[in-house]
Amino acid sequence: MLAVHVNIQVKPECVERFVEATKDNAKNSLNEPGIARFDLVQRKDDPTRFVLVEVYRDAGAPARHKETAHYALWRDTVEKMMAAPRASEKFETLYPEPARWSCE
Amino acid sequence: MLAVHVNIQVKPECVERFVEATKDNAKNSLNEPGIARFDLVQRKDDPTRFVLVEVYRDAGAPARHKETAHYALWRDTVEKMMAAPRASEKFETLYPEPARWSCE
Repeated sequence: MLAVHVNIQVKPECVERFVEATKDNAKNSLNEPGIARFDLVQRKDDPTRFVLVEVYRDAGAPARHKETAHYALWRDTVEKMMAAPRASEKFETLYPEPARWSCE
Repeated sequence: MLAVHVNIQVKPECVERFVEATKDNAKNSLNEPGIARFDLVQRKDDPTRFVLVEVYRDAGAPARHKETAHYALWRDTVEKMMAAPRASEKFETLYPEPARWSCE
């Protein structure tokens, strides 16, 4: 499967609103059949920095995610909250095996 | 919960042995009650680069993990495979809620 780590830095005054909007998006994204995980984590040493850990079940799933209403809402909501452009890294998942990346 | 992302770069000739040793360690680590996740992912654009995504259920779990025989074996096995020192980032998990980070 494909894992995408999205590195995000937000303006200090936007942290709370960013977390709220991103939790909503994560909750809706987990209902997409192509998405196994959509985790949000916050740096211990810098609460303005986050990583979204997205795991997709197939190659077409990221494009389908970007066509959803919840993605568009999130993208537009957080656009002005960014302190720097988002940077993504793409990975192949090696462990655990695909069936164990989500509980459904 | 605490998430730790360990960034790892290995020597090209060590990739296969590193993956084997790290899968063994991940499998054993998931049996520790304090560990919710122990994922291994490999960079799409550079197969010598990996991230271990470790999620701990409590503050004492990382120290208990480092006392296990499987951690010691992994640490000693991969020591000479590193192309650069390992670099860790620590995070607070924000989403999903703690009970949903593992399937047990």
